[in-house]
Amino acid sequence: MPHDPHIRLFIPGPVDVRPGILNAQAVPMIGHRSPEYANLQGRIIPKLRRVFGTAGRVFIVTSSGTGLQEAAVRNCVGHHCLSLVNGAFGQRWYEVTLANAKPADDLQIPWGTAIQPEQLDDRLRTGNYDTVTVVFNETSTGLLNPIPEMAEVVCRYPNVLLLVDAVSAAGGTEIRADEWRLDVCLTSSQKALGLPPGLALCSVSDQAIQRAHAVPSRGWYFDFLQYDKYAAKNHTPATPAISLMVALDAQLDAIEDEGWNVRFTRHRRLMRQVHDWVTDSGFGFFADAGYRSPTVTAVENTRNIDLGGLNAYLRQRGMLISNGYGPLKDKTFRIAHMGDTTEEDISVLLETIDSYLAGQ
Amino acid sequence: MPHDPHIRLFIPGPVDVRPGILNAQAVPMIGHRSPEYANLQGRIIPKLRRVFGTAGRVFIVTSSGTGLQEAAVRNCVGHHCLSLVNGAFGQRWYEVTLANAKPADDLQIPWGTAIQPEQLDDRLRTGNYDTVTVVFNETSTGLLNPIPEMAEVVCRYPNVLLLVDAVSAAGGTEIRADEWRLDVCLTSSQKALGLPPGLALCSVSDQAIQRAHAVPSRGWYFDFLQYDKYAAKNHTPATPAISLMVALDAQLDAIEDEGWNVRFTRHRRLMRQVHDWVTDSGFGFFADAGYRSPTVTAVENTRNIDLGGLNAYLRQRGMLISNGYGPLKDKTFRIAHMGDTTEEDISVLLETIDSYLAGQ
Repeated sequence: MPHDPHIRLFIPGPVDVRPGILNAQAVPMIGHRSPEYANLQGRIIPKLRRVFGTAGRVFIVTSSGTGLQEAAVRNCVGHHCLSLVNGAFGQRWYEVTLANAKPADDLQIPWGTAIQPEQLDDRLRTGNYDTVTVVFNETSTGLLNPIPEMAEVVCRYPNVLLLVDAVSAAGGTEIRADEWRLDVCLTSSQKALGLPPGLALCSVSDQAIQRAHAVPSRGWYFDFLQYDKYAAKNHTPATPAISLMVALDAQLDAIEDEGWNVRFTRHRRLMRQVHDWVTDSGFGFFADAGYRSPTVTAVENTRNIDLGGLNAYLRQRGMLISNGYGPLKDKTFRIAHMGDTTEEDISVLLETIDSYLAGQ
Repeated sequence: MPHDPHIRLFIPGPVDVRPGILNAQAVPMIGHRSPEYANLQGRIIPKLRRVFGTAGRVFIVTSSGTGLQEAAVRNCVGHHCLSLVNGAFGQRWYEVTLANAKPADDLQIPWGTAIQPEQLDDRLRTGNYDTVTVVFNETSTGLLNPIPEMAEVVCRYPNVLLLVDAVSAAGGTEIRADEWRLDVCLTSSQKALGLPPGLALCSVSDQAIQRAHAVPSRGWYFDFLQYDKYAAKNHTPATPAISLMVALDAQLDAIEDEGWNVRFTRHRRLMRQVHDWVTDSGFGFFADAGYRSPTVTAVENTRNIDLGGLNAYLRQRGMLISNGYGPLKDKTFRIAHMGDTTEEDISVLLETIDSYLAGQ
């Protein structure tokens, strides 16, 4: 099996995983109906509750984050969904919703601009919707939507559920699912939590479970009622990705050792480090001021540099950033500052980009 | 993170994974849109084709095998499915089909009895069905259904697709998906392939892809057309479980070093070793003669031994077998002889069971 030399990842997922956590995966297998497994899941759940800020249900699913986007709409959309879209992953969730034969309307906001609570209120006032989907941190644009304010709006409509994609947010910024009354808040392992990909994680409210009871055709693999039933025994309905769960357990311990608030503060400090460099280098920001993401910065390529050339240069020096997502390719580039990344990592990256720019 | 002492698994999945393959998971992360990733998937695909005996499409999905049961019926059932059931996983597939709002009739055969081609022919002659689901190797009963003979029947009905669950078969017995004309043949990583759980794998025929184009509401996460589109670049639609794929790549190399036929022969040799012990010990077989599984034996507990006591005794000595599945609990017990298990492993297990029985 050929091994490539390690490239340090500053792409917005998968992120680098620390060697101790990579090695945690290499434990012997256990039966998924054994007491050892139930102990493992039982150790993880209280720590996962702190990721989402909930005292309630959290589920662990073997899939990517998109799997839980599918789960959330299959379980929760009764008659009509409002899909808020200001980036590629909001757009994907809208498409996932339609692909599951759920009626949905998209509210399109320019990419890089935050969705405003009033825009949401205007649409909900029509009474047409029983569900809203929104992405907390748009990985494609480096924008953090104002979820607490949006959730306040949704709370005025007692029959409307709020589903939040917190991929690339969870583990990098605080989430208070109970306080904000999020009905589903989902994430995946390979972003700000600093784990390998393959696990998706979510909090699910009582109201979401009540809705699921009334929604037909939820499927089996992503059926929240199955997960809820098996959770009582610290089991999952089907065989879970055990080695990834052992890594999750170890990483949540490491995060608690760091301290959640210390971790969130570190993410904001790295963000400011990148922001200062963007400003000093004469680049722009793609996302509007006030809504820039603490985990990934989308840099507007105002200097029109050759991004393929930059990444080739970086790769030779053992690191990698991301080009813009989809239509933003070459117009933006993205630097992730999430997971277990340090200030020193970011410094080395930015100095290397500077040396590339100096040679142009 | 507490570590439990290792218990050698003779349960029918998850199976033990060899240390070199466990360690293969612990590689640094790579981007899932990077050339390194495309090379990884590109190395795996030709080897996976040999697992299924196909020159065509094979997909890698981050989920359990049940996830691909859901995928297969969402993509392939047009108007009506015939669900063949002679064990717990055939029953699950029927329930998965109904949970996805696909019309389905179950053909129930007594557990432990093979489905006969004529029974299938009788039902297909009604003209009511466009899809058949069947489990190759029933993990719950230790029974191998006669898939080649059943596939011959389905071939007489050109508009009927045959979907085969080969979980606990693939990697332990030969599959010839192209020759037998299986439309979907699916498996998961943690059975006879000897890998950690978290990946599901399948072959998909041209006819299945044609059907998928005509079937609405395929969803997104398990949409074969998405997988097919991304496969052209050696990508997957969403972020895959990279560390598990690195282990898959390494294990498929190790299996090719062993030799596919050598591996299948070893599975049958282990089966005979267990069968001889069953007969000599005065137990019975749950599955009918002629259809007993090469990967797992369901032993009829004719001596009415205390299986909880047996497993507690085995556990103290660092090994574990399975009680009967669901309604077969205490009436049967199951010994897996799949994956990378050796004759010596089985000898040690059977001697330990003998010492327990001698002390009763």
